[in-house]
Amino acid sequence: MTLSLYSDEQYIREALKQARYAFEEDEIPIGAVVVLDKRIIARAYNQTEKLQDVTAHAEMLALTAAANHLGNKYLQECTLYVTVEPCVMCAGATAWAQVRRVVYGAAEPKFGYRRHGQLLHPRAEVVSGILGDECESLMREFFAQKRK
Amino acid sequence: MTLSLYSDEQYIREALKQARYAFEEDEIPIGAVVVLDKRIIARAYNQTEKLQDVTAHAEMLALTAAANHLGNKYLQECTLYVTVEPCVMCAGATAWAQVRRVVYGAAEPKFGYRRHGQLLHPRAEVVSGILGDECESLMREFFAQKRK
Repeated sequence: MTLSLYSDEQYIREALKQARYAFEEDEIPIGAVVVLDKRIIARAYNQTEKLQDVTAHAEMLALTAAANHLGNKYLQECTLYVTVEPCVMCAGATAWAQVRRVVYGAAEPKFGYRRHGQLLHPRAEVVSGILGDECESLMREFFAQKRK
Repeated sequence: MTLSLYSDEQYIREALKQARYAFEEDEIPIGAVVVLDKRIIARAYNQTEKLQDVTAHAEMLALTAAANHLGNKYLQECTLYVTVEPCVMCAGATAWAQVRRVVYGAAEPKFGYRRHGQLLHPRAEVVSGILGDECESLMREFFAQKRK
């Protein structure tokens, strides 16, 4: 099997690295990266506990970091990679930023945006299930550990 | 007519002050305050242009400031006052913060959360139309000026 350096899987793998940093810091393990022209321009992981701020989801921090990097709040040419299906808040943020491609790993039937309909940018392409099992396992492991 | 110091109208008037600061800085004029036990614990206005960050809506900045003030990301006992109906992103943020009361001025049929259904916390009470004309006028004036 050949694995392109620039495949969706490779970028979700990078997002998974971020998710593992979250796990190590006792945060719900979700990670995200923003890619422009094959290059990662922002990486982030969920920090809602550390910052005591519900807005500090991985996607939000990654979108803000990408906009800072570009000096432009619009991210039309960027792809957001995130390990878990975005929530309503984060979906809304990608719509405002006009992100045209969103790739995620595991579905999130309860807190994901999808059960509320189409909340992303009208022209956004969505790819789901990339390394979905791995992204979901990390979440399961986290919550299993929390219950102990 | 008597006007309570602690009425919804008074707090929306404070949010309108914030919205006017946004207007003066050439930002879409939306302002927000967060109130706990009749006291304003956070004030903010839209700063998406200055910060070049789509996540810098008045509500998001106010929720983050309120959480910082309390050292707690959950704002169950707080009321969010905002001059215009929140968008999907901001509605999602209030849900995560478990805000139980949201009061806004003007409806936002195009970008407001309401057309997407119930996105706030399941137990949230919503009050709308408080100083709605004044809040809407400020928006109209801003966009009329922009078109010139």
